[in-house]
Amino acid sequence: MSESQAIELDREDILAHKRHEFKLDSEVIYLDGNSLGAMPLVCAQRAREVIESQWGIDLISSWNKHHWIDLPTQVGEKIAPLLGAAPGQVICCDSISVNLFKLLSCAISMRPDRRIILSQKDNFPADLYIGQGLSELLGTDKCELQLVSESEVQNSITDEVAVVVLTHVNYKSGKLHDIQNISRLAHEQGALVIWDLAHSTGALPLEMDKCNVDFAVGCGYKYLNGGPGSPAFIYAATRHQHAIKQPLSGWMGHSQPFAFANQYEPASGVQQFLSGTPGILSMSVLDAALEVYKGVDLIQLREKSLSLGELFLKLVNDKKELSSLKLVSPEACTERGSQLAFSHPQAFEISQALIDQGVIVDFRSPDILRFGFAPLYVRHLDVFKAVEVLVEVVSDQIYLQEIYGNRQKVT
Amino acid sequence: MSESQAIELDREDILAHKRHEFKLDSEVIYLDGNSLGAMPLVCAQRAREVIESQWGIDLISSWNKHHWIDLPTQVGEKIAPLLGAAPGQVICCDSISVNLFKLLSCAISMRPDRRIILSQKDNFPADLYIGQGLSELLGTDKCELQLVSESEVQNSITDEVAVVVLTHVNYKSGKLHDIQNISRLAHEQGALVIWDLAHSTGALPLEMDKCNVDFAVGCGYKYLNGGPGSPAFIYAATRHQHAIKQPLSGWMGHSQPFAFANQYEPASGVQQFLSGTPGILSMSVLDAALEVYKGVDLIQLREKSLSLGELFLKLVNDKKELSSLKLVSPEACTERGSQLAFSHPQAFEISQALIDQGVIVDFRSPDILRFGFAPLYVRHLDVFKAVEVLVEVVSDQIYLQEIYGNRQKVT
Repeated sequence: MSESQAIELDREDILAHKRHEFKLDSEVIYLDGNSLGAMPLVCAQRAREVIESQWGIDLISSWNKHHWIDLPTQVGEKIAPLLGAAPGQVICCDSISVNLFKLLSCAISMRPDRRIILSQKDNFPADLYIGQGLSELLGTDKCELQLVSESEVQNSITDEVAVVVLTHVNYKSGKLHDIQNISRLAHEQGALVIWDLAHSTGALPLEMDKCNVDFAVGCGYKYLNGGPGSPAFIYAATRHQHAIKQPLSGWMGHSQPFAFANQYEPASGVQQFLSGTPGILSMSVLDAALEVYKGVDLIQLREKSLSLGELFLKLVNDKKELSSLKLVSPEACTERGSQLAFSHPQAFEISQALIDQGVIVDFRSPDILRFGFAPLYVRHLDVFKAVEVLVEVVSDQIYLQEIYGNRQKVT
Repeated sequence: MSESQAIELDREDILAHKRHEFKLDSEVIYLDGNSLGAMPLVCAQRAREVIESQWGIDLISSWNKHHWIDLPTQVGEKIAPLLGAAPGQVICCDSISVNLFKLLSCAISMRPDRRIILSQKDNFPADLYIGQGLSELLGTDKCELQLVSESEVQNSITDEVAVVVLTHVNYKSGKLHDIQNISRLAHEQGALVIWDLAHSTGALPLEMDKCNVDFAVGCGYKYLNGGPGSPAFIYAATRHQHAIKQPLSGWMGHSQPFAFANQYEPASGVQQFLSGTPGILSMSVLDAALEVYKGVDLIQLREKSLSLGELFLKLVNDKKELSSLKLVSPEACTERGSQLAFSHPQAFEISQALIDQGVIVDFRSPDILRFGFAPLYVRHLDVFKAVEVLVEVVSDQIYLQEIYGNRQKVT
């Protein structure tokens, strides 16, 4: 595989034009869109409009005039097709952590004779912390987080489990869960499922409705490119919307927020998951970012993502200088999300050296190098060049150790 | 009182120059800063910088390079002096609703032998909804919201009350609670206090530490001018920070978020109230907005606020055409926040007509007209002109009824 072959792959890429919708210097090799998506140009325009014109000039009237009040629903409906969700089931609000708390509370109250929240030991820790927080609040007689290894998940779904909460694409390894199968197993045992789609949404096709999923959460700042700390979303299947009561019952989730009634009465649809006043600036920017997905075929998106990942893996495998990198992700591309992870004793030092040379990747403690392939803007040529730099960096042990060995490990 | 006298008051106003730091057309009479603060010019600059340069160019590295990771603490410390809070007790995060849930959960667990959350019937409804949500989640044997009228609050603080949660400045009437006295009464009964400072912060001096307050919440989008849905804050007294455990235990509240440990271990300080990834765009804009308070003497700010309110009230009282407006706020200015409320059978129609004539006020169901006097940018001349327009509007009953009588009541 030569540089010209990589360029040829880019020439054949149906989605190649999408990169021009992002603010990305031609030289930047950005393999960290799985952590923070790059900036769609339309976001800068929208932010200026919302801040300088809507807020700055139209002030309070913008809640109606510019439909701020509708933003959580509007953004939710834009995300819905990416989830394989029919309208009326997705709403944009808060963070994944806060949203997961709402959903776990609902799930526990929907299965009053059960108390187990089942999850996976290496699930994204924040999801586990929220389960622990709810368990401490309610008491372990009402709710307990049970953690099993990935291989034990399926067998651990018993009729004592109230809810299974898993991340579709593992944040470290990139390994995919089979949403359809696990959701079915859970339902067979009378349990509910909550899927964390943080590393999936906008990276591959999803089928919430078809897979009969109960609930899901996801964030706006990874593949959806909504900006740092962009608000998150909730998917709640229509069939559950009459039966739930989420505890973070703020005024925006009230059936009539501006009646200012004393008694909370939840909105009838997915709007009942709203809590406080939505962050209009951040949410408007996410709303704009989602425009980038207009006309994108998610199957083509997935093909591009896999093509990038496969090229990276092939190049790494071909270089004997990189034999010290140990693949942590599944070998089969169909079992992975849009990222590759390798372990290496000097993973941190390597990540720092790569970043200094313009190949933006990330490090996950204790020894993981993550390479993300956001299919809307990463090029095959980026992948080719990234591996070239990786070879240089890994080969020069003295440089790695001397320059980066003492750098403090931070985010 | 003549127009020239109003202009003279503005000439003598020590804070008059502050208006130039806001994007406000000279003709705009904005009496709704108690609902959404006007836009400080510095916010537009900061938003451009954060979006186009920090996110757009420096991408993921900005978490460290531009100190995004420190924003919740940094913004908290900027808010602290406005609350009369020593460092280490204020953090910026989430919405008031979500933050109140965290604090109420803490308070209930800190008083395990008590179950009453005491509040006031006409408290801001969202605060009541959150109390109801927690009560439903925990069960009324663990937690129950007890609502009393404003006059009954003090006598209702018994040794059965776990926590008193009140809004310092009532959102409708503007009536002030005596934080020091009520906090003392609560402590005498072994209860905790949570103050909602939404309508106080940045409008008058506060003394959280001196009044021995336990906890407080407030928002960034009213007098702090952080923009629509700007993030909120929590004050937690240092003395409680070792004893609490809040249930929305997201990764940002972990003592070592990037260790990705399985077990939640709260950060030692007020940082333990963080939950999910902070919304960097919105929070950066609030951070910029707070620059406006640099060098502002809060006692002078309060004097200006009272001067505006007193002028408004005197002008209204002097006009016989406005005798149909009934003051809902306390007559004594020392008992009010920075707003005045009047009831009128046609309050909605009047509010719409005022807005159409460039006097921005708001309506609160069923019959309340609210006039807010944000002391950083409202002028005495604005107050004078607003009352002139109010006289015109109220006097022309046919116009009011024909044009506005059938308009739909929205926000």
